[in-house]
This record gives sequence, C-alpha cells and structure tokens, in this order.
Amino acid sequence: MALKTAEQYYESLRQMSPTAYVLGEKVENVVDHPLIKGQIAGVAQTFALAHDPEGKELLVGRSSLSGEEVSRFVKLYESVDDLLVKVKMLKFLSQRTGTCYMRCTGMDAINATGVVTYDVDKKYGTNYRERFLEHLKYIQKNDLVVWSGVTDVKGDRSLRPSAQTDPDMYLHVVDRTKDGIVVRGAKAHQSGSLCAHEGLILPTREMREADKDYAVCFATPTDAEGIIHVYGRGTLEERALEGVDLGNVEYSKFCPLVIFDNVFVPWGRVFLCGEYEFAGELVRTFGDYHRHSHGGCKCGVGDVLVGAAAAIAEYNGVPDASHVNAKLVEMIKTAETMYGCCIAASVEAKKSESGIYLVDSILANTSKLYEGKEYHEVIRLLVEIAGGLVADLPSEKDLSNPEIGHFIEKYMKGAADVPTEDRMRMFRLIEKLAFETRDIVSNIHGGGSPEAHRMTLLRDTDLEPRKKLARKLAGIKEKE
Amino acid sequence: MALKTAEQYYESLRQMSPTAYVLGEKVENVVDHPLIKGQIAGVAQTFALAHDPEGKELLVGRSSLSGEEVSRFVKLYESVDDLLVKVKMLKFLSQRTGTCYMRCTGMDAINATGVVTYDVDKKYGTNYRERFLEHLKYIQKNDLVVWSGVTDVKGDRSLRPSAQTDPDMYLHVVDRTKDGIVVRGAKAHQSGSLCAHEGLILPTREMREADKDYAVCFATPTDAEGIIHVYGRGTLEERALEGVDLGNVEYSKFCPLVIFDNVFVPWGRVFLCGEYEFAGELVRTFGDYHRHSHGGCKCGVGDVLVGAAAAIAEYNGVPDASHVNAKLVEMIKTAETMYGCCIAASVEAKKSESGIYLVDSILANTSKLYEGKEYHEVIRLLVEIAGGLVADLPSEKDLSNPEIGHFIEKYMKGAADVPTEDRMRMFRLIEKLAFETRDIVSNIHGGGSPEAHRMTLLRDTDLEPRKKLARKLAGIKEKE
Amino acid sequence: MALKTAEQYYESLRQMSPTAYVLGEKVENVVDHPLIKGQIAGVAQTFALAHDPEGKELLVGRSSLSGEEVSRFVKLYESVDDLLVKVKMLKFLSQRTGTCYMRCTGMDAINATGVVTYDVDKKYGTNYRERFLEHLKYIQKNDLVVWSGVTDVKGDRSLRPSAQTDPDMYLHVVDRTKDGIVVRGAKAHQSGSLCAHEGLILPTREMREADKDYAVCFATPTDAEGIIHVYGRGTLEERALEGVDLGNVEYSKFCPLVIFDNVFVPWGRVFLCGEYEFAGELVRTFGDYHRHSHGGCKCGVGDVLVGAAAAIAEYNGVPDASHVNAKLVEMIKTAETMYGCCIAASVEAKKSESGIYLVDSILANTSKLYEGKEYHEVIRLLVEIAGGLVADLPSEKDLSNPEIGHFIEKYMKGAADVPTEDRMRMFRLIEKLAFETRDIVSNIHGGGSPEAHRMTLLRDTDLEPRKKLARKLAGIKEKE
Amino acid sequence: MALKTAEQYYESLRQMSPTAYVLGEKVENVVDHPLIKGQIAGVAQTFALAHDPEGKELLVGRSSLSGEEVSRFVKLYESVDDLLVKVKMLKFLSQRTGTCYMRCTGMDAINATGVVTYDVDKKYGTNYRERFLEHLKYIQKNDLVVWSGVTDVKGDRSLRPSAQTDPDMYLHVVDRTKDGIVVRGAKAHQSGSLCAHEGLILPTREMREADKDYAVCFATPTDAEGIIHVYGRGTLEERALEGVDLGNVEYSKFCPLVIFDNVFVPWGRVFLCGEYEFAGELVRTFGDYHRHSHGGCKCGVGDVLVGAAAAIAEYNGVPDASHVNAKLVEMIKTAETMYGCCIAASVEAKKSESGIYLVDSILANTSKLYEGKEYHEVIRLLVEIAGGLVADLPSEKDLSNPEIGHFIEKYMKGAADVPTEDRMRMFRLIEKLAFETRDIVSNIHGGGSPEAHRMTLLRDTDLEPRKKLARKLAGIKEKE
Repeated sequence: MALKTAEQYYESLRQMSPTAYVLGEKVENVVDHPLIKGQIAGVAQTFALAHDPEGKELLVGRSSLSGEEVSRFVKLYESVDDLLVKVKMLKFLSQRTGTCYMRCTGMDAINATGVVTYDVDKKYGTNYRERFLEHLKYIQKNDLVVWSGVTDVKGDRSLRPSAQTDPDMYLHVVDRTKDGIVVRGAKAHQSGSLCAHEGLILPTREMREADKDYAVCFATPTDAEGIIHVYGRGTLEERALEGVDLGNVEYSKFCPLVIFDNVFVPWGRVFLCGEYEFAGELVRTFGDYHRHSHGGCKCGVGDVLVGAAAAIAEYNGVPDASHVNAKLVEMIKTAETMYGCCIAASVEAKKSESGIYLVDSILANTSKLYEGKEYHEVIRLLVEIAGGLVADLPSEKDLSNPEIGHFIEKYMKGAADVPTEDRMRMFRLIEKLAFETRDIVSNIHGGGSPEAHRMTLLRDTDLEPRKKLARKLAGIKEKE
Repeated sequence: MALKTAEQYYESLRQMSPTAYVLGEKVENVVDHPLIKGQIAGVAQTFALAHDPEGKELLVGRSSLSGEEVSRFVKLYESVDDLLVKVKMLKFLSQRTGTCYMRCTGMDAINATGVVTYDVDKKYGTNYRERFLEHLKYIQKNDLVVWSGVTDVKGDRSLRPSAQTDPDMYLHVVDRTKDGIVVRGAKAHQSGSLCAHEGLILPTREMREADKDYAVCFATPTDAEGIIHVYGRGTLEERALEGVDLGNVEYSKFCPLVIFDNVFVPWGRVFLCGEYEFAGELVRTFGDYHRHSHGGCKCGVGDVLVGAAAAIAEYNGVPDASHVNAKLVEMIKTAETMYGCCIAASVEAKKSESGIYLVDSILANTSKLYEGKEYHEVIRLLVEIAGGLVADLPSEKDLSNPEIGHFIEKYMKGAADVPTEDRMRMFRLIEKLAFETRDIVSNIHGGGSPEAHRMTLLRDTDLEPRKKLARKLAGIKEKE
Repeated sequence: MALKTAEQYYESLRQMSPTAYVLGEKVENVVDHPLIKGQIAGVAQTFALAHDPEGKELLVGRSSLSGEEVSRFVKLYESVDDLLVKVKMLKFLSQRTGTCYMRCTGMDAINATGVVTYDVDKKYGTNYRERFLEHLKYIQKNDLVVWSGVTDVKGDRSLRPSAQTDPDMYLHVVDRTKDGIVVRGAKAHQSGSLCAHEGLILPTREMREADKDYAVCFATPTDAEGIIHVYGRGTLEERALEGVDLGNVEYSKFCPLVIFDNVFVPWGRVFLCGEYEFAGELVRTFGDYHRHSHGGCKCGVGDVLVGAAAAIAEYNGVPDASHVNAKLVEMIKTAETMYGCCIAASVEAKKSESGIYLVDSILANTSKLYEGKEYHEVIRLLVEIAGGLVADLPSEKDLSNPEIGHFIEKYMKGAADVPTEDRMRMFRLIEKLAFETRDIVSNIHGGGSPEAHRMTLLRDTDLEPRKKLARKLAGIKEKE
Repeated sequence: MALKTAEQYYESLRQMSPTAYVLGEKVENVVDHPLIKGQIAGVAQTFALAHDPEGKELLVGRSSLSGEEVSRFVKLYESVDDLLVKVKMLKFLSQRTGTCYMRCTGMDAINATGVVTYDVDKKYGTNYRERFLEHLKYIQKNDLVVWSGVTDVKGDRSLRPSAQTDPDMYLHVVDRTKDGIVVRGAKAHQSGSLCAHEGLILPTREMREADKDYAVCFATPTDAEGIIHVYGRGTLEERALEGVDLGNVEYSKFCPLVIFDNVFVPWGRVFLCGEYEFAGELVRTFGDYHRHSHGGCKCGVGDVLVGAAAAIAEYNGVPDASHVNAKLVEMIKTAETMYGCCIAASVEAKKSESGIYLVDSILANTSKLYEGKEYHEVIRLLVEIAGGLVADLPSEKDLSNPEIGHFIEKYMKGAADVPTEDRMRMFRLIEKLAFETRDIVSNIHGGGSPEAHRMTLLRDTDLEPRKKLARKLAGIKEKE
C-alpha cells in the first residue's frame, strides 16, 4: 500500500487522537474543525493528484530503499533530477491550492536527517542512519504525512539554549532510559501538524558543548502522549468559522504551537542525541532544502497572484491598461526569479557522502530572499491592481439578504459580462491571498528569517577568490 | 456649544437612527456594535483631546465665520499655518489611536467645497458659496462629525459615468423639484460613516457635458431616508466580535458601502448641480487635501510602527542588533518622508480666490506615493523585525485556559524581565498594524489610487521649463 | 587549424584593413590604438584560455558540422548542456577580464540564424540554411571572431523602418544583382567590431510587408568595402590615451557606429532577404540568447564587483563592518540572481526544429531585467562601500611627481599593511567598474532595452491558465 | 563693496597664487586651466545672478553684523525664512548650472562655526565667537568665496585620529606659538577649493581627549604658504582638455586633495583649538546644514535630469510613451522628496543659543538618504529613457570631419524636426549628468556617507516615546 488515496488519508487521520486546543477549547474531532479542515483538504490533494496522470509524473518517484513507487514527499533526493522534479511538484500543487499543503517540511527534514545521520555515524560509529532508514521505510510503506518540528520558541533571543533562564525554551532531552529518551520543550509555527501522522523533530540552530542535551533529532507520532497542539490565530477566522466569504473556497492553513510535555521517544526513533557539533549541519541542511521548497511553492502561488490580478483587472473593465501590464510584469519577474533560482539550485546540487544531493545553498537562499522581501511588493501590486475593494467588501450574507441583496448585486457589479458574484469572489480570493497572516508571514519568516538567509549568503560566498580577481585586474601584485 | 465633549458626542450619536446592515443583518444600535464601536472610540478622542491642554493647541482653531473656537476638523484652511497645524494634529491623533479617526475626510471635503463653490458662483452667478457657508456655520456651531462621500462604485472602469450600462454606478441626480433634488447611487469605502452626523457628498472624478447629472455636491444627514450603510468586511473580525486578542485594544476602523436609494436633498444643502466642468476641480482639490491629510496621519501611525518594532525587539531580547537598527532607520526614513513632504506642501500652499489655501499638489501627492508603496515595506520591516509570531500566536483564551494556560505563559516568554502577556499583546498589536485590511488597503488606495497620484505628478509638473534648462546647459539654441 | 592562439589572433587582425575613424581621425593601425587595444586584449583571452586546461573545459566544444574541436563562440547550441556551459564560460571570462570580450554577440547571432534559416527554408524552400552552415564551417575552421550587427540607428522611434523620412535609418537592401545584394544603413553600439574578422548582420525588429527590404540577414568581412567604423566616445578616455590610471590595467571596451555605405554582399553570404515575417523571430531569438549571455557575463563581472568591494573595505581598515557585510549580501544576491535565472533558462531550454536549443525566454529576460535595474544598485553599493575616493583620486602622475609624490604616498594610505599604490589601484578599478559608460549603459540597454524585456515577459507569459487557477480557487464556475 | 560682479570675482581670483598640481604638473594659471575653469564659471554665476532681479531675491540678504546687503553664501541663518530661502537659492542655481558651484560648503561651515563658537565660549570663557564674527565681517565686506575643509583623509578607518600610525592622517596642530598655530594634514574632496579665496577648516568627526590636537577650527587663505592643491581625477577629462563634447557646455566640477604642509594660522583666525568635546557638535552641525544644502541643490539638478529625459524622449520621437511617463513620475517623485524634506527641515528649524537656526536633523538627513540611494535610480531612469546612445556617441570631431561628417549628421538623426546636432548635444549632456564622477559620487558620499545619515536618524529619533505609544495601544500597563 504505497500510495494512499485521499479517502484513505482522511480515514487514517480519523484514527488518530491528538491532543489539540483551538481558541481556548479542547477539540476532539480535528479533521472536521472549520479552522483545521482547509489545510487537511490541501494535504489531501497531495494524495488525490498522485493518482492523476499529470500529477503522478511529478508526485510519485521510486524508493531506492524498497524499489517501490512512493510519494516524493517521503523520498530521498538521489539525483539532480529529483530536486528539479521537487521544485516542479511544489509549483504544481501550489497552483492548485493557492496555499500550504505542508508536506514539504517533512520531506526536507527526512532528507536533512538522511544526510547528517551518515556523517554522525562516520565520526562516532553510531547507527543513526540505519535506524533512520528503517523508520523511513515504515513511512514510505504507509505513505504517511510527516511534519518537521524545527522552530523552537527560543525565549530570550540573545541567549544560547543552555543559557536561558528557563531551560525548556529549546526542546531538549530531560531523561535517558534504557528504552529511550524523554524530551521537553515547544516548537512554534508547526505548519499543519494536525494534518500529519508523524513528526520528525530537529534542532533549530547550531549548538555548543554546553547545549548538548538540545542536540536531539527524533521521530514521534503526532498523537504521542505529552504532545499538545495549540492552534495559533490568524486573520479571517470568522470566515472559516462561518464558512462564508472564504476567498479560497477549499484550502487554508494553520500552524499550531506544539508542546512536548515530557514526551517519551524509544531509541529506535532517535537519530541524534548529544552530538552537538552536528546540530548546525542538520538545521542548515534542512534550511537550505526548505528555502528551495519555498521557491517552488511560492512561484506556484505567484501564478495564482498573477492570475488573480489579471482576472480582477478584466472584471473591473481595465484588462489592458498600460500600468496594469507594467505591474503584471513586475509580479511575473519576482515569481520567475524564485523559480529560476531554485531550478538553478537543483542543477548545481552536489552529492553528499550519504548519497543524498545537497542543493546549492547560495541559490536556494537567494530565492528565499526574494520571497522574504520582493514578494511582499508582488502582493502590494496585486492590491494596487485590484483596487480598494480588497478591503470593505460586503458579505455574501449581505448579497443573500432579501432586503439589501439586490443593492449589493447592483453596486458591486464591474464589467458588464461578469456576474457580480464572480467579481466578489475574486476580490475575496485576493483578500485571502494578500492578508492571510500564515501565508504572508511565512513568506517572510518561513524557512528561517531573512537575516538567516543573508548570513548564509555571506558565509557560503568565498570572498577571497573574488578579491583576488579584483586585485589581478587592478594590477596589484600578490604578496609572496 | 462649539466644542463637544466625548460624552456629548456619544450622546448625539445615540440620538440618530441610521439604516445599517452588518454581515447580513440589520443593526439598530450601531454605537455599541463590536465591529463599529472601535472607530467611534477613535472619533471620540478627537473630542476628548480638544479639551486636553496639549491636544487643544492642535485640535482647536477659531472660525472666521463665527469668531468662535471650533474644532479644526470643521474649520477652513485660511493660512499656511492652518495647514501646518493640520498635519501636526493628524499626526498627534494617529500616534494616540494607531488607526483611523475619520474626521479628516469631512474636513478636506469642507475645504474643497469652500474653494470650488466660490469658483462656480463666479462663473455662473449661483449662490452655492453662501449656502455652503451657512451649512458650515451649522456644522461648526454643533461641532458635528462629517464624512465625505467621494468614491463611487464605478462599475466598468473603462466607461464614463453616463456611458455605464447601469446609470447608477456613479451617484447622480434623478429628479429635481422645487424643494430639492433626488439622488441615487452608492459610495464605497465610507470610512466610519456611522460615526458621523453628516455626510458631504462630492463627485469622484472630472465630468463631461454628458455626465452633467453626475456633477453634484451636497450635504445630507447620515440617517437621511434612503441612505443605507452596509458594513464592509475586514480581517480580524472574530477578535472584535468576541472582544479578545484585539491588538489595538480600543480603536479600530470600518468602511461601509453607503447606498443612496433615491435620497432627497433640499436646495439649501446642494452646492453643485450640473456645472460639470467643476467636478474635476472639486475632486482634485479634495484629493490633494486628502493626500496631505494622509501624510500627517500615517506618519503618526509610523511612529507607532517604529515604536512597536523597537518594543518587540526589546521583548525578544535583541534590542540592539545591527540589522534591527538598520531596519528601524528605513522605517523612520519613510515615515519622516511622508511628514516632511506634507509640511512642505503646507508651506508652499497658495491662497485660492475663495481665500482658502490650496496645498502644493506635487508635494502632497509625492507624500502619498510613499504611503502607497514604500510604507508597505515599512510594515514588512516591522514583521521582519518582530519575527514569526506575528502569525500563529495562541489566543488569550488559551492563556486563560486552566489546562494549558501555564504552557502558553511559559513558552511565549521572551526576555526575562518582560511579562509574557505584554509580549503577546505587542505581537497582537503588530498583527493588527500589519494585517488589518482597512488600514493597509487605505495606505494604498485611500485618497485615490497610486496611479491617480502619479498622474497628478505628471500633470502638475511643467516639463517645458525643465526641458529648457536642459537645452540651455547642453548649448542648444532655442528656436525663434 | 581550429583553435587559434592569442598570437595567431593578433596576427590575423593585423592582416585586415578596416576603415576606422576615432575622434575625428582616420586610423590605420587599429590593433595598437590605445582606445581599441584594451578590448582586443580581452578577445585575445578567449583564445589564450582555450589552451589553458581549466579554460578549455568551458571554451572548447566539438562541432557537429566538422567533428572537430572548435571554440564554443562559433558552435551551435545543440543541448541543454551546451547552454549551461555557455553561461559558465561567459562567467569564467568576465571574472578574468572584468569587461566585455564581445564574442558572445557573434555566438548568439550564429545560433539565431541557425534556428531561423531552417524555418524560412521550410516555408519557402529557400536554401539559406545550407548557405549558412557552409559559412559557419568556414568560421569554425578558421576560428574567426564574429560581431553581430543588430541595433539600427532607428531615426524617429515612433516610425516603422519604411515610414522614416530617411529610408536608411534601418539597414536595408538597396540593390539586388545576379551576384548579390547591396545594403545601406548603420548599426550602432557594435561592441568591439574592430576586434572581429567577420560581421553577421541581423534585423533589429519585426517587420511588416512594407518593410520587406529591411528584412535582411547576411555575413560580411569587417573590412569590406563601404564599411566604416566610427569610434563612439566613452568616459575615462584620457586614461587610455595616456596609458595611466587605467583601473582595469589590461582590458577595456569600445563600441563603434558601423556605417554600411552601399556594401556588396554575395548571395552565398545572404541568409534572409525579404521574408519579412521572419525578421521578428530572428531578432527575438537573438535577443533571448543574448540576454542569456548577459546573465553569464555580468554575474562574472559581479564577482569582480563583490571582490573589489571586499578588497577596498579591507584596504580602508573596515573589512568586517556590519553595514559592509549587509551591502555585500545585496550585491551577491543580485549577481547570483542573474546567474540562477540563466542556469534555469538553460535547463528549461527547448529544442527547435533546426535542432538548435532555444533558451527559456521568460527566465532569460528576467535575468536581464535585474541587470538593467538592480545591478545599477549593486554598483552604487560598491561605491557606497568604497567611499568618496572613487572620485577625486590624484593621478599616478602625481604619485610619481618628485615634488609631491611623497605627499600622495603619505595621504592616500589606508590600512597599515596595504601599500598606498595598491589602494590607489583598487580605487581606480572601482572607478572604472562604476563609471565606464560602455559597460554601465550596456547593463541597461545591451541585448535590448528593459522595456523590450518587460514586453517579452508579458508576451511570453500565458495569463489565461493563471486566471483559470485563480477562478478555480475562488470558486468561480467556468463559462460553458 | 559688498556684492562683487562676476568680473570682479574673476579679477580677484587672478590676484591669488595658490600652489596647485594637476595630473602631475604644477599649474600657475589655475583660472584658465581647462579642468578648473568650468567650476569657476559656476561660481561666477553666484555673483552674476546676484545682480539679476530674479536671482537677487534669493541670493542676497542683509547682514545683521553690518546692516549691509551681502551674499547669502556668507550670511548667518537667522530665521526659518533664511533657511527656506537657502533651499530655494540652491535649487535656483543648480537648475542653471546643472552641477556644483561650491559656495554652500563655506556657507554651512560659517554657520556651524557661528553656532559652536558660542557654545565653546560659554563653557570656557574663550573669545572664539568674537574672533569669528570679526573674520566673517571681513568675508562679507569683501564678498569672498569660502571653501570648507572638513573631510580628512582618515588613514585606517578603524582607528581614531590619535591612534593612527601616521599622526597626520587627520589634520592637527603641530605647533603653538605666541602668534598662532601650525597645522599639518590633508583634506580630501575639497570641492572647488581653487575657486575660493578663503578656506574654513573644521574637524571631520567627534574627538576624545587623546585627539585634542585634532580638535581645531580655523580660517586660512587658499594660497597660504604650505597649502598644496592636488587635482583629483574624474571621468570625461579628455572632453574638458580638448573643449569638445562637453555635455554641460559651460560648467563642471573638480575636487582637489588639499595638503597642509605645516601651515601657519594666526590666533585671530583660530576658532577652536583643543576643546575636543566640541569637535563632534561642530561637524554634526555642519553635516546637518550641508545635507540640507544638498537637498536644495540636487532637486535643482533633478529638474535638469527630468528636463533632459523629457527632451531626449521628444528628440527620439517618443515623447508620450506610457513607460516614459511612468519613469518621469519616478524621477519627479525623488527630486521633490529631497526638496520637500529640506523645506520641512527649514520650517522645523530651532534657534540655537547663538541665535543661529539649526535645521531639523532628521528631515535633513532623510533628504540626503534619498540623494544617496534613490537618486542613483533617478539617473538610471534617465539613461533608460534616453537609450543606448548615452554611451558610444561619435564625437563632434567626427561630425565636423569632411569625410564622415555627413554620415554622422545622417545617422544620428532622431525626430524629423530636431537638428542632429541638438540631439547629440542632449545625449552629451545626459552622459555628463549620468557619468561625471564628482557629481555622482557626491550624491552618495557628499555631506557624509549614507551610513552617517542612517546613524544620525537613529541617534536623533527618540525611540522611547514611540515604544510608549505602542505599549499604550496594545493595552500594556507601564511599570511603576
């Protein structure tokens, strides 16, 4: 049973019993919760489209572990082509959901763990890699959805994990037993954790010797004892709660805070434990992969942004205004830049000793920098093109009110051949695309904050040979 | 009774009975409606602070009509100093509300009408100006709040008013009687219309002869028969409806669609009616004034944005990071630019024939262009400084839940000396500042869309003398 | 003799006798002219490095016409790999010259002609392709340098070629004989035409039937009768003329106006003549290739800019200032973006019917847009990092003047361990990199102007499927 | 004789005998030197226009010292109006010269010295102010041109003055005698020093006690013994040397390195000597004044840039292209922003204890930040509008060559009604405006480098009250 159907996915989720709180209340049935179900619907598309001829080309690969067909979301990056297909797969899915379907986090965490367990074993003679591949076979065999727990809550940002007043501000090992470890801490921004069967937990930064207990990587079921998912608020919740004026009528996103309250993890699911000098490599490898994922994903969303802008210009009656065209070009430019840099980061990938390919970090981080900054301008351009009704649009409920519905129908009309309802729907979609906090803040802070990407660019660019080129052209003699 | 207290303002509002719909339902008590009251609270500050020693300096002027002290929101701009004080007043209020208090729209409409009625009378011998000043005395005497109805719904943007399929897509005169006129149409984005006693309605664009019936300017009570206010949706409504996680704990904004369903206006309240060639002057004068208002207002909000960024950096434990400082500088730069250009637009104001001062349009529109574009980057910088918790922050309701409250308290903690609740509140404020659609879309489209400002810059910049300067320096002889 | 040495290249140039004017004077020996020789030195590197082990990997390919090793500058793009190697080759050379070595223009023109002659023959049964490949064999066999003549002088930009007052504002056929054609017109900005043996002349825009005579493509020796090269002025000429304060001590650039005063071209060298509907395809194909070339080239120059910035920061004593690092990141980001988009444009290349690969136009043009705009900011950042001495640096002649040389030596000193002369040389290089008109204006206008790239993005992006994605997400039903 | 004529100015300059070197050679007659005379011509306009009715309004004020009419370039800023007029005067002159006329440096240095001598005397009971006002009377009476010597060469940027290996990297007092002091050091970028009669020398940074000898301010004749002016190189020198293809046909700029080789200064001309804690105030006051000057100056040049762009679009035949208009708007926006912020910095000026008005530093520095960054984009837009011929234009010498002149005349033609020569002249002007190093680098580094302006913004913005505003809105209780 390598490739689940969407129905099987839903079924499997219903069999889980995670501890979840939403807006102060414990929720038993997360699958149907109005603030949760929109993202489950997005993840379901990753299953549904794997059975679609066009989607299958991108979504399904062959596992080198089992020789079977598996979802690419649980497959290792074993070639440049795997990385190229990954970018295209994410673009394809984002075009169809317009928001997050969350599985890239697990995919990137799986690969980063695959790379680093090899390196740790090589140095210490540990058997993390074997454990990990065993676990991965299980994931592949059951076509499970994996979330990656990376971002710790961090407490005081100026202090290292072991220097915090409260030692739990970074997740860490609080006990070691014969059977496993016990961990405590919390991971924020856990995109769609409740859509997933399994979590793969990674450190969020490099560690030093004093931070040893924080250098831990492991797998855990989403509904393990002691794990509590607390829904994080976003904009437009009223719409989701009532199911009207949704904008994106099927898909949405949520990102809980996930608390680990003394969670037990058996040794077979522990892939790093104390080898602190590998924490940095693990999170950096994940980070580069994940910025690469963002590029694929967000250029797909970018196509939706461009399409929405072009559509609303048409609905407003000004499809060919020169200033609209000029703005569309700027939007296209940024979306294609993210795509181009990630395609290039795939082509320039290098094979690690583990056999897994590492994307080019400079190109992947360059792509992410555009998402973090220029993409925000893309969204502004969308709003500029659309006009003021991105805000202040009356509700569908007004449209269907018998006393005033006809006024809304009349006055929200744009171009003659466009039904008012269609125009209102497009404005709602644009409102969602431009003002849904989870997506917009993720553009900026997802996959690490822009300063992290900038630091990566600086760290991974070797300035010495560049200085040498300049000195040579200037006629400066090199010192002996 | 020239200067109302906040209490008197509330009292006066309660005596009105506007027709209002919110989310598909008719609302009788608008003053206490959770989606309305936040802006009424903001407007109330314009009254309260007029009685405060510091505020009075800015908020109160002397009417040349009555010789009495009046709110500057209903006073004519009779000097450069009036315009300078206006900018400072709006900045002062925005610093204290962090959002819209709506009275600038009426103030700007009053002044634009004052300028243009003079010009119309001069050409046609009408008595619009006298009528208007009479009306203004009434407004001043009763210290009324005025909203300005400018933005028509516009239908197909490529067609002029008289060429629309539905003639009501721009508000127009549908009947003229001995006693007055009857108008029909709808005005969108009517910031805080339900906070006001009176509306002053202006055309939204220049008109040609065929559009004659659309060239109409008049005053009307907010609760006149036939006027229907339909609430326009925004983000974060769930918070307002429940009164939790508000971000800005007291103030907010709303902008109804206001429908004029055959509204009667007596002649004494009509200030333009058919003199189509003045429609353009009227809306352009309003537009320049209003872009000037935005500069004052939004630099005040800018101080809040800068303050919130600096505060959250401190709460996160990184108040002095060099990249935070670099971003703060960019934020300050843009806010000060808007302020500087509007101060300059005041200083370079010219007295019109009516005696009312006209701001420098190029400088006022330049200021607005920064609000429309670079200010969006200011907000992005705020989000970049703050970090990911601008999205996904658990609710106050989670914080007060007995089962998980202690986890939220623990894990949302930042710097050691900052209470978790304070940090959460600051994140909520930033979420509101960065993702409240009415405010953000108003940055872009308020006071006209950026393309309108660009066109104004081009139209009001005389290229010929500039070309001549270039030719002279290039040594090109002028043609005879 | 497929691969010339640098010496053989110089020798071959000396055997030519082009008609050339520089600053109002006829020049016989162009090879040694101080304003010309710097670019010849750059071109010579394309020969020298082909014999260097590292360079050969990139610079030498195998001709499918002859089966022999040939310079990639005269080879067809017969695979994705050819296009990837092209980008890397150009980057490699730019890193080593810091300026233009001109051969990419010929390479791109050769390939565009290869693509289009196939299409013309297919439609008309002409034998352009055979003629062209025959010519190409000759070029390959003799390892000739080719310039491409694309940019007509254009006269009044609002008029089509055939509508100009002077019919010669676009190059056109003025006579057809049994043996060949006679052409008249002028091509501006002919990068390094005097460094080349041969020109390959293309139309500069799409043509209509009335413009038939302007739809002409042909090859001609650089020194054919009737061809006149007129040197175009640039900045920093005094330095080249005197050979001091050069900045880039060996390499530079020049771009003549090339006048075709009734030049005869035998039929065997004519590759398009009147098939006007292919003019657009020819120049667009060339344009896309050439924007792709720019990306490779300018990211190599970008490495020099980054290196110069890092070197001068070190020489000034502030190598690790946080603001310097922040600026270096922005510089790297833009350079890598151009590179990334061009790598991606190679990967996404499609095979044309001619067998030659076409780069992805959207990605290639996106790259060029960064060169046209953001790269200018890269240069500004370099100047900002370097400091004021990018201007106003005393001359080497002052440094060697016995009366004041010691003062220059003393006062132009920066960090203690850096010789004053080195620091002065680095400032000179930066001055050259930042203020050499040919290079800087080429960033903006080379390979077509930014508006051309913007139009390409708009034309080649299919908005319809994107609008459909948006409609689907918004829940808008498609019309039957 | 308060107001010299241009002729008297030239005459007075000829009577001086400064020590000057240009390109390695000692120059006796600086007034007529082709690389110097262009800026003298610009300065001469500050005299000529003072006798012109329009110019006099701006250029002439009344001295409070003598009661006489004096040039505003040597007048104190004694009111807001003085500062407003200053901005307009500089704009007026820049519009007419398109480059630097240098006198603002002296004007700003005079005022800064006026402010600080008061403060020093107040603390120490010195009589610097009296000395200085005496000197200023002399300057005013003789209508002298003053350059300000601020920018030291600085050596290793990471070291304070007293910590440099060579103590002369900042100008300092090397001897004190009964009659005066002896100073040594060098000042770089001394805009037009050879156009001036007098220098007023200021420290370039704040100083600490160890740097005491570097805290020195004094006046000196331009041709004092021991002062050596060494010409700093720029682009386009060939043009000036030959007097062809000048672009700006009359005016240009140069900035020598000025070496002080043990220069004696009598006590009567010493205005600070060792009171190190005032060095910072002096240079910061100068800096704020000078950034304010730049705003006025560069918005005037901005009008020339806009005019040149509009003119060349017309000459090219595309005056009304929508993309040209969009670019013109961006150019206007930036130029007006600099102007607006400086007008506002004048209005918000505060009177110092000395009676001299201090500009608002935040607004003045904000203006300068646009000059340092966005103005560079304005120049790029000019080049983008103009087209490729900003580079590579054949020479006037080609145009007048009998063999090829007719070709140049023919092929450089644009729109039918524009003489080719005019079009060529406009391209030359644009080349000069866009690529003259002194002007362009001055945009970035003149009046301090952008990092200095950014630091000023951060230092002079009080974050505490802004944080308080944010906390109040967020509902955070202030600590007791």
